[in-house]
Amino acid sequence: MRSLRSVLKRPKGRATTPTLITLTTDFGTKDPFVACMKGVILGINPRARIVDITHEIPSYDLEEAAFLINSFYNDFPSETIHLVVVDPGVGSPRRPLLVTTHYGWFLAPDNGILSYVFQREKTEVREITQERYFRPSPGATFHGRDLFAPVAGWLSRGKKPEEFGPLYLQPITLPLKEPRYTHPNKIRGEILHVDKFGNLISNITWAYLQQGGWEEKLGRIQVRLRGSNIGGLRRFYAEIKEGEIGCLVNSFGYVEVYCYRGDAQRFLRAGKGAEVVLLLK
Amino acid sequence: MRSLRSVLKRPKGRATTPTLITLTTDFGTKDPFVACMKGVILGINPRARIVDITHEIPSYDLEEAAFLINSFYNDFPSETIHLVVVDPGVGSPRRPLLVTTHYGWFLAPDNGILSYVFQREKTEVREITQERYFRPSPGATFHGRDLFAPVAGWLSRGKKPEEFGPLYLQPITLPLKEPRYTHPNKIRGEILHVDKFGNLISNITWAYLQQGGWEEKLGRIQVRLRGSNIGGLRRFYAEIKEGEIGCLVNSFGYVEVYCYRGDAQRFLRAGKGAEVVLLLK
Amino acid sequence: MRSLRSVLKRPKGRATTPTLITLTTDFGTKDPFVACMKGVILGINPRARIVDITHEIPSYDLEEAAFLINSFYNDFPSETIHLVVVDPGVGSPRRPLLVTTHYGWFLAPDNGILSYVFQREKTEVREITQERYFRPSPGATFHGRDLFAPVAGWLSRGKKPEEFGPLYLQPITLPLKEPRYTHPNKIRGEILHVDKFGNLISNITWAYLQQGGWEEKLGRIQVRLRGSNIGGLRRFYAEIKEGEIGCLVNSFGYVEVYCYRGDAQRFLRAGKGAEVVLLLK
Repeated sequence: MRSLRSVLKRPKGRATTPTLITLTTDFGTKDPFVACMKGVILGINPRARIVDITHEIPSYDLEEAAFLINSFYNDFPSETIHLVVVDPGVGSPRRPLLVTTHYGWFLAPDNGILSYVFQREKTEVREITQERYFRPSPGATFHGRDLFAPVAGWLSRGKKPEEFGPLYLQPITLPLKEPRYTHPNKIRGEILHVDKFGNLISNITWAYLQQGGWEEKLGRIQVRLRGSNIGGLRRFYAEIKEGEIGCLVNSFGYVEVYCYRGDAQRFLRAGKGAEVVLLLK
Repeated sequence: MRSLRSVLKRPKGRATTPTLITLTTDFGTKDPFVACMKGVILGINPRARIVDITHEIPSYDLEEAAFLINSFYNDFPSETIHLVVVDPGVGSPRRPLLVTTHYGWFLAPDNGILSYVFQREKTEVREITQERYFRPSPGATFHGRDLFAPVAGWLSRGKKPEEFGPLYLQPITLPLKEPRYTHPNKIRGEILHVDKFGNLISNITWAYLQQGGWEEKLGRIQVRLRGSNIGGLRRFYAEIKEGEIGCLVNSFGYVEVYCYRGDAQRFLRAGKGAEVVLLLK
Repeated sequence: MRSLRSVLKRPKGRATTPTLITLTTDFGTKDPFVACMKGVILGINPRARIVDITHEIPSYDLEEAAFLINSFYNDFPSETIHLVVVDPGVGSPRRPLLVTTHYGWFLAPDNGILSYVFQREKTEVREITQERYFRPSPGATFHGRDLFAPVAGWLSRGKKPEEFGPLYLQPITLPLKEPRYTHPNKIRGEILHVDKFGNLISNITWAYLQQGGWEEKLGRIQVRLRGSNIGGLRRFYAEIKEGEIGCLVNSFGYVEVYCYRGDAQRFLRAGKGAEVVLLLK
């Protein structure tokens, strides 16, 4: 594994490769919020390449943002800059952060939305304090445009993290909802996210099944959602008939309850927080 | 017309022109599905340029996807790679396809979403079988990210279609809803799509009117929607008054019923499947 | 300030910097309208860089479009091309315009959507008449794709504004809703826009407060919305408690009524057109 030091120092040849900057916000796309961020970035670095992750995080929903980040960042090249702005405390003394990892940089307010990143990755955290990089603004309510976007622009042009501010030792983390083995033959978890298809995504992961040695016993697993039996684990959606309910480990590694060609959330009237239990028969 | 062979062989100078890759899915934009596909593509080819067509195909709606593809691909440069992923059978034995045409390449599951492309274009169809190009994954439910995205990335870097798999002779096609002349003076069609403005788009095309020699007699055409008279063909929307219903051949060549500055779907309570009849008076 | 002449003449070195083209429409993203525009632009200039501002302007809403343009264009580099297509009169004799400003070029129908641009910027307005730059089309209902997109493509490749058509002296402007001082201690305005968070954005600006010398007396300002007292001006959202109503000058310079971590529109049942009064106590 490369040291964080090697991430901080950018290889010389990379001027020819445009830097990627991803954007994740709760700003929606009907207002010009996201567009302004892009204008500021491209004004500083016309060669930056910007990828929208989503702007449909529910307003102010830090937990949704934290969970979502978790699912995309390691699919991007390791020198990508990830802006994540869900920021109800904007303008207050809450700190803006610049976090260096092996999977690139994260720019985000210090409110817990990077909790999974802090849990999973080796990180170097800095508070962004150098106001000379900020965009002047008539108000203090849009750090996405006035602070995070210009810092992303300058970072993508080769400025080093230490130029933006000092090390910061105690970033805020949210209490993460973890599954647990309540018995060697029983895992208790819960639904953390409902996707666009109405699939119910739990916090029980493939890695967690492996920890308990369950990967050898997949055929014996039975799934229960809020006490109702869902059956065993499938390999792919089309294993069951249209309108039936099934369960599988999805392509992000989470145990997921689905309705084939239907909407499990609507069909089961279940959503975030619903209890999921896996049993070994 | 260039031969398909000349499309397969890319001109040497093109390394300097970034390759376009378009994305059409039913993934929505609230989850990180599309972002992951982009991360994978850009990890393989940092110079690829990605254009979102839409991610709002109704979940699993193959007919909508097939119809939509039809309306955009020939507006793109002829060496564009079009990814189309509406894929309820993902992970099952349904095949992933790579289709070469004079309008670029299509990557899609073999479930009929390329039906109009097969009907209208000369094509060479291959089954994608070479797993060494795939992204490793904990699950089998996200071929958009794990199979189609990396194949698009490698194709955009100059790999040839034959490197991804063998020829495939019988791709699935959907039964297409075609209009018909029930009499030399009468065409019977139906509404295939309702657009964002509530305009009702039928399957009767300008080309089909020409086949019957009707282009000389435009002034005599009368349109009926579900038995109600809509009047003659207009040239542009503003020919009628606000709130009135009219009909015209739209800029994609389809006969369309609209409400000026209003929403025809709501006003007429008509939608997909409604019968449209054109009469020559 | 540079002369408009210097904007018209592009510096020679700029071939290496990709030109930015922004898109603002009421087309939505479920249909291929926007994608077709992008295909046409990239077919003409493969190096153009396209940024979506929004495609969620309510259908045909010229006032919303005019107001929105106002909030993003000066965050973009000054040689950006801004396409703005909300165009209920498409195909009728309404004119297509090319407007040169110090903040780049605007391409839009002559229906008032550039009203704020005309009010605030020095402009040179041309009617686009040169059909040889247009995309051939079976219909006259999609000038976004058939006229504005190709003109943007050619303009981004270095064609000069005068090549597209003659000067045009009387573009249409909408009656703008301006605030007014009804007394030296009283400003009467109204809500012009409700953003994604339910924040109520008024037409009273920071610049307008300065005109009356109120910037020295911020602590004495009291805000009323439809007669109800909202209190004084805050600096940032988090100054009040969750669910409370407050008011501040937002980062675009507008006086805005908000509900902290809530939705002011829903909470107050107020929207566009609601009266806002500022009083000096």
